[in-house]
Amino acid sequence: MNVLIVYAHPEPRSLNGSLKDFAVRRLEAAGHTVQVSDLYAMRWKATLDAADSLDGAAGPRFDPSLDSKRAFENGRQSEDIAREQDKLRWADAVILQFPLWWFSMPAILKGWVERVYAYGFAYGVGEHSDTHWGNRYGEGTLAGKRAMLMVTTGAWDSHFGPRGINGPLDDVLFPIQHGVLFYPGFDVLPPFVIHRSSRVDAAGFDAASAALGERLDTLFETQPIPFRRQNGGDYEIPALTLREEIAPGRSGFGVHLA
Amino acid sequence: MNVLIVYAHPEPRSLNGSLKDFAVRRLEAAGHTVQVSDLYAMRWKATLDAADSLDGAAGPRFDPSLDSKRAFENGRQSEDIAREQDKLRWADAVILQFPLWWFSMPAILKGWVERVYAYGFAYGVGEHSDTHWGNRYGEGTLAGKRAMLMVTTGAWDSHFGPRGINGPLDDVLFPIQHGVLFYPGFDVLPPFVIHRSSRVDAAGFDAASAALGERLDTLFETQPIPFRRQNGGDYEIPALTLREEIAPGRSGFGVHLA
Repeated sequence: MNVLIVYAHPEPRSLNGSLKDFAVRRLEAAGHTVQVSDLYAMRWKATLDAADSLDGAAGPRFDPSLDSKRAFENGRQSEDIAREQDKLRWADAVILQFPLWWFSMPAILKGWVERVYAYGFAYGVGEHSDTHWGNRYGEGTLAGKRAMLMVTTGAWDSHFGPRGINGPLDDVLFPIQHGVLFYPGFDVLPPFVIHRSSRVDAAGFDAASAALGERLDTLFETQPIPFRRQNGGDYEIPALTLREEIAPGRSGFGVHLA
Repeated sequence: MNVLIVYAHPEPRSLNGSLKDFAVRRLEAAGHTVQVSDLYAMRWKATLDAADSLDGAAGPRFDPSLDSKRAFENGRQSEDIAREQDKLRWADAVILQFPLWWFSMPAILKGWVERVYAYGFAYGVGEHSDTHWGNRYGEGTLAGKRAMLMVTTGAWDSHFGPRGINGPLDDVLFPIQHGVLFYPGFDVLPPFVIHRSSRVDAAGFDAASAALGERLDTLFETQPIPFRRQNGGDYEIPALTLREEIAPGRSGFGVHLA
């Protein structure tokens, strides 16, 4: 199978760099073909702007959505964007690998999402009507593919626990797992997480890579997180609220898991 | 009072640009002094790397935390970083203004947080012991200052409601409001939010600016979000989990509000 790793750490000789190298070797040894988008090494342009279209802004005002749509439709996107979209089309599974900085992905990876996720590619796809609000949240361009986060944090496990001060890690990652990955159609696997990254010694690295190896060996069998599909009947459309009879009286991120 | 607006939109003639201009005028008319960090206009460097220290990496490997600490302590930070820290020290209130892109802030603003929030400035501050886990979450360098998000979204209000498919907006913003603003000490005000940003016409803009005006007029009186202070007795230290007798049996972001 084809696996794309989108990797965002500035130092190759870091824990993240070592885990990335381990992942590439493990996947290749299992017969997969691997591509790595090493965003720092590629000097990825993090900032979305009018230069993302070869034609610049269409009108007197740059419109991030509409100019993205036009460039995508007309094959006039900046080449670095089109190349990453091709990698996503090619991939059967995508791994986003990064250190959790300020409770989200590093800016360089956020900018990869913003620029590569063009209007017509990752959003604004499919019919928008009173019964079908676009092909998204379980449908879309990337449907049928798997995605997984590979994340390191500097905190303790308990700090990200159900009652930990940082918030439960699943909730902290929800805007990424649900909003960035499930949205354009990916089946999202449970994340692979290493806490207290600055304290990982040689023995810790052996344990971490063993655990990562198991996750990579089962990349195409692991059950995805059971996010509810937007157009599968669980939501009122166009309000896009969960139907009354489903998880009655409850609210929050958790209700979007079946 | 001194107000800093950190503004992240690529197009001055956008809804965000117009609201920013309105905010500056309104605050100045009320007698406040305003500075704007217009990140796109400043061509803000979004990507954290070894060049953020004038000395580069100290050792053979760039360490994002330790090299930040060293540069901060020795006055060897990149000048653009030091300048933004000075603005934060100067400000009595800080507004982060941005369109919500993929359920978080634009990459250019995320990169402002990552680079300006140096080790020793926004984290790694204060004693770390078994009874006091650093000056953070309600204490820290920016304690005594107020902060507020000014956010536009393309979605409907209901899509971000308690049972909306995007997740409740308060939860989507928690990693920013709690993790980026409350963490280094800010008192965080409820956000100012405009939904369906692409549909705001002249009448909609009048309504939006009237509502924004009221929020700005009461910027220094509005009650902050009652996030629990880390070192105020509500948390076990060093596990940093909420004490058993507080919000018993509950979990999730909501338990961190008193």
